[in-house]
Amino acid sequence: MQLLLIHSDYIEYETKKQTPVAEKIEDSLKSGRLEEALTVFTAVESVDEANPEEAIEKAASEIEKVAAQVKTNRIMLYPYAHLSSDLSSPKIAVQVLKGIETALSGKYEVKRSPFGWYKAFTVSCKGHPLSELSRSIRPEGTTKAAAKPEASGEKEEVVSEALKAEGTARS
Amino acid sequence: MQLLLIHSDYIEYETKKQTPVAEKIEDSLKSGRLEEALTVFTAVESVDEANPEEAIEKAASEIEKVAAQVKTNRIMLYPYAHLSSDLSSPKIAVQVLKGIETALSGKYEVKRSPFGWYKAFTVSCKGHPLSELSRSIRPEGTTKAAAKPEASGEKEEVVSEALKAEGTARS
Ligand SMILES: [Mg+2]
Repeated sequence: MQLLLIHSDYIEYETKKQTPVAEKIEDSLKSGRLEEALTVFTAVESVDEANPEEAIEKAASEIEKVAAQVKTNRIMLYPYAHLSSDLSSPKIAVQVLKGIETALSGKYEVKRSPFGWYKAFTVSCKGHPLSELSRSIRPEGTTKAAAKPEASGEKEEVVSEALKAEGTARS
Repeated sequence: MQLLLIHSDYIEYETKKQTPVAEKIEDSLKSGRLEEALTVFTAVESVDEANPEEAIEKAASEIEKVAAQVKTNRIMLYPYAHLSSDLSSPKIAVQVLKGIETALSGKYEVKRSPFGWYKAFTVSCKGHPLSELSRSIRPEGTTKAAAKPEASGEKEEVVSEALKAEGTARS
């Protein structure tokens, strides 16, 4: 799973049109808005299909860490296929997105924009050094880790993310 | 190079803080806004380093095609490292971004947000089926092509992009 986390003044969306795989939704999901929120653009990937529960748990944990860093308790989950060239099936994507929503709902105000719809959206990124972060979530035992080891320390992560955010790092 | 092209009601940005590799800029580049524009989030990659001129030419050509599809003559080039995990050096990135700006400037109103700065931004995506497209630009002879062959036809491309936009496609 690929996550792009934007600390946002606001995020709002409005469904425009279904694609052939549009999630069936209640009217309440047709539009949404959160202010002072963490927007989590999310691409569920084929690597997540073997163990969706593990993917949900790891993603929720990463999102919690970033929400704590930027001190928000509002989260907008937003499906975003353009973050990956190796996507999961739509069925697994919806399962994982709903799973993350459920995992976070006890502790946060969570909204989720629907999968499989053309949507208009506006997002406002705050622009501070932690306001744009990306995370790769990978199953245990695969090469790309979900996050750097704790031992590498917060500062190193912040610097690394700062560089990444501005196109500097070679990985 | 990875491009994420957003047909935007508006895009605006404001520089907040330099990173260690911040591009030296005139005051005129410290903030910017375009309405009814194509926002081109751009990650220059290590594969672009061997022949930056070819990368510039191909990227400008893809951007022109999409600008024609969505019928705009305003383009905001916006460096966006989060689109790739294999970035070029900052030097090449700035060279390529400036090169694309120059290549498009004769025909379009082009603005470019600066490389290497923390920036606040707001982008509003229109939400129609062609308002979010991604493109991979690759040198001649490498496996991933810059775009599907013309023979595949416009309709197929649109459908493919529609699915991609909403998380459906397996590639
Ligand atoms: Mg509108």
